[in-house]
Amino acid sequence: MSEQAQIGVIGLAVMGKNLALNIESRGFKVGVYNRSRQRTDQMMADHSEKNLVPSYTIEEFVNSLEKPRRILMMVQAGKGTDAVIDELLPLLDKGDVLIDGGNTNFNDTMARNAKLDASGINFIGMGVSGGELGALRGPSLMPGGQKEAYDLVEPILTKIAADAEDGKPCVTYVGPNGAGHYVKMVHNGIEYGDEQLIDEAYFVMRNVLGLSVDEMADIFGEWNKGELDSYLVEITADILSRKDDLGEDKTKPIVDMILDRGANKGTGKWSSETALDGGAPQSVITESVYARYISMLKDERVAASKVLDGDVETPAFTDDEKQEWIEKVRQALYFGKIMSYAQGFEQMRIDSDRYDWNLKFGELAQIWREGCIIRAQFLQKITDAFEKDPELKNLLLDDYFKEVAVKYQKAIRDVVALAVKAGIPVPTFSAAISYFDSYRSEVLPANLLQAQRDYFGAHTYERVDREGNYHYPWYEEQ
Amino acid sequence: MSEQAQIGVIGLAVMGKNLALNIESRGFKVGVYNRSRQRTDQMMADHSEKNLVPSYTIEEFVNSLEKPRRILMMVQAGKGTDAVIDELLPLLDKGDVLIDGGNTNFNDTMARNAKLDASGINFIGMGVSGGELGALRGPSLMPGGQKEAYDLVEPILTKIAADAEDGKPCVTYVGPNGAGHYVKMVHNGIEYGDEQLIDEAYFVMRNVLGLSVDEMADIFGEWNKGELDSYLVEITADILSRKDDLGEDKTKPIVDMILDRGANKGTGKWSSETALDGGAPQSVITESVYARYISMLKDERVAASKVLDGDVETPAFTDDEKQEWIEKVRQALYFGKIMSYAQGFEQMRIDSDRYDWNLKFGELAQIWREGCIIRAQFLQKITDAFEKDPELKNLLLDDYFKEVAVKYQKAIRDVVALAVKAGIPVPTFSAAISYFDSYRSEVLPANLLQAQRDYFGAHTYERVDREGNYHYPWYEEQ
Repeated sequence: MSEQAQIGVIGLAVMGKNLALNIESRGFKVGVYNRSRQRTDQMMADHSEKNLVPSYTIEEFVNSLEKPRRILMMVQAGKGTDAVIDELLPLLDKGDVLIDGGNTNFNDTMARNAKLDASGINFIGMGVSGGELGALRGPSLMPGGQKEAYDLVEPILTKIAADAEDGKPCVTYVGPNGAGHYVKMVHNGIEYGDEQLIDEAYFVMRNVLGLSVDEMADIFGEWNKGELDSYLVEITADILSRKDDLGEDKTKPIVDMILDRGANKGTGKWSSETALDGGAPQSVITESVYARYISMLKDERVAASKVLDGDVETPAFTDDEKQEWIEKVRQALYFGKIMSYAQGFEQMRIDSDRYDWNLKFGELAQIWREGCIIRAQFLQKITDAFEKDPELKNLLLDDYFKEVAVKYQKAIRDVVALAVKAGIPVPTFSAAISYFDSYRSEVLPANLLQAQRDYFGAHTYERVDREGNYHYPWYEEQ
Repeated sequence: MSEQAQIGVIGLAVMGKNLALNIESRGFKVGVYNRSRQRTDQMMADHSEKNLVPSYTIEEFVNSLEKPRRILMMVQAGKGTDAVIDELLPLLDKGDVLIDGGNTNFNDTMARNAKLDASGINFIGMGVSGGELGALRGPSLMPGGQKEAYDLVEPILTKIAADAEDGKPCVTYVGPNGAGHYVKMVHNGIEYGDEQLIDEAYFVMRNVLGLSVDEMADIFGEWNKGELDSYLVEITADILSRKDDLGEDKTKPIVDMILDRGANKGTGKWSSETALDGGAPQSVITESVYARYISMLKDERVAASKVLDGDVETPAFTDDEKQEWIEKVRQALYFGKIMSYAQGFEQMRIDSDRYDWNLKFGELAQIWREGCIIRAQFLQKITDAFEKDPELKNLLLDDYFKEVAVKYQKAIRDVVALAVKAGIPVPTFSAAISYFDSYRSEVLPANLLQAQRDYFGAHTYERVDREGNYHYPWYEEQ
């Protein structure tokens, strides 16, 4: 038995290969298999000294693993995953653990978990964040599935995950069936929001304050030393400091040579679709998805820019005023980030109830502190908030976030007003302050909405002074 | 054969009953059937003089119809529809036409159309707008399915639909398979946007300008005489003029007695989910869906209102200034409406290509001019725009809409800035001006986004000066 591998990895593209190497580096013997043998051969050639067991048929692969078998699939989400499962299923024994580490929609994971569970096979859908380097050195891992299955792989996962500052591994048992892939999806949605908020801060400083790319590189570098300390702010500072590597003028900032068409791979979209489906107001992330969509309409925008003239203010600033505005933009960015996470965690709370997952929100923030794209000091504050109150309804009701939001609201109000009057789009900044003001409004204009719905569709309304549903006699004479 | 009915209606709840009576009133003999006989009996008792043919079994009902049979299903969307189809299918002949007039998701309609088409049965998914009264007197109808099936029912549909001012019936062949229910869904999304925009105008006038409900009733009444002339503005004026019918103080506006929890029946959500899925930036409608979701969190909002103190401006206005601001709010509302429709029609253009529907956008605006909730003068402008240029990419590139948007942009910038600084949430007004400024921006900050994505995920980017996809050597020493 000692010659058998403790875990097997199917799919040796860069993510699968790097995770396999990561696992091996922690002292495990790893079975590796790829549909086309070329990748397996290449991996073995590159890493001949490693404790890897290559297989060239799926039967051979399954037989190379100790029981209960632990198999990590790193294949194309969707049909690729189903094809591998169909091949594996006849070869597996009850109690084996199949892990899907792909970028899978959690609804698919829920269906697969249910189907495999009926055959006695454990199925873990695991979000993996951190990109290629994270996979190799230590990713943030978000596994969901049978708890007993998690226990069987926990010793491996805790060793390969990134370690946070306090030494805790960035992995935890997220919850049953699709919970892991769901949380990874929300993580990615939050990542979209973080990026767009940073991009708007950059855009306002560039186009309203008139700052240079070099100046902004320094500013983001400074911001990264304070409460905005995070991987995305850090790389933004680095990006803005980089010069073109290909063009004729190698003193130009690389960012000015990059086309402004923002691509996406779908997880931000899923996150917003799920929020819409579950009744969670998640406007910051959704506006960041739409911002990418509008950016893709480059040809239309170029045409529109020639005919839709702006009627805008073009304020000038003294150096001192500029410094004041830079600080306001910084506060607006942090405020926007708080709103985005408040919405993301509210969405998770709503869906945790909806799917009966019992998500531990503080732990989720904890496992995002290292390894993943949204890693940030800030996440510790979220963990702290849920440790103080595990039943916290919304981050904005926690003392720390409440204080910052109340304190920084003036800055984001000023920045939004400035940008809107200057004709510079700030969709997520705007969504952030709208959300804040909506959330803290005891009364919203939905009373008028309910009257309208009752008027044209007899949908009835509730009243402020008594229980029940009422219909007004709109069509009777006044 | 002359005793057979020309069309049959299944499902005699209020919508089905009213549509059957509408059809009968245009000179057709109508078969009627309901799963429980009570409704059929009631209908026959109430309308014994009418040219109706009641049936009490589904076989009897099918046999009561002339061939090819035309059957309008007005049953619960989803399982209800499938159950009726399963019952009907063995009794139908090839070439019969089944119409689903329910509030069905277009994806379901596409699947049903394909399945029934394989059995030689025609299937029309038809959006019906206008509520109960519209069904009886003349709705706006959005039928999609086989063109030859539409031709078989066109004589009936054109007679029961509402007539627009120019005498044209508010019905047209929308397109194949799910196109009809799809267009109805976008119609409903647009309706969500119209309502929320009106509600924000009301909220700003009330909470920033300090106007009374009576004053606003007059203002909306005035607005309804101009370019905002529409059913929803008209009923808003009426609603604001109505007094409480139940409470102790019958001089209070009814709107003040209605609880501000905005309900929804899902079609606005579907519309936004579809926009997200198709890559259409549809922020105004989506923000209006989220506004309802936030409004539903009444208990949380009440709690938050006590701890999240505002740091806001509370401006005072002279009477003249108030008048100026009221006009600005009017312009902001019209501007917001234009952005919402520009997004809705852009979404339809994207999905028309995606599903190969060949939607006729001008005709769609035309059939919304009467009968439905969003009926408005404004729609004629959309028809005109697409008549001038059927390939129009975006309403904002049409002369009329371009001119109004350019002219009114100053007003919405001022209103958004005013509301944001005063702490009054204006999520759709904000989304509208963000969309306008994004759409008319030759350059957006998505260059920075692409750099970020390339940095952490090696996703590559395009360049402004040459074709192709590039990856920057971020990890090499500078």
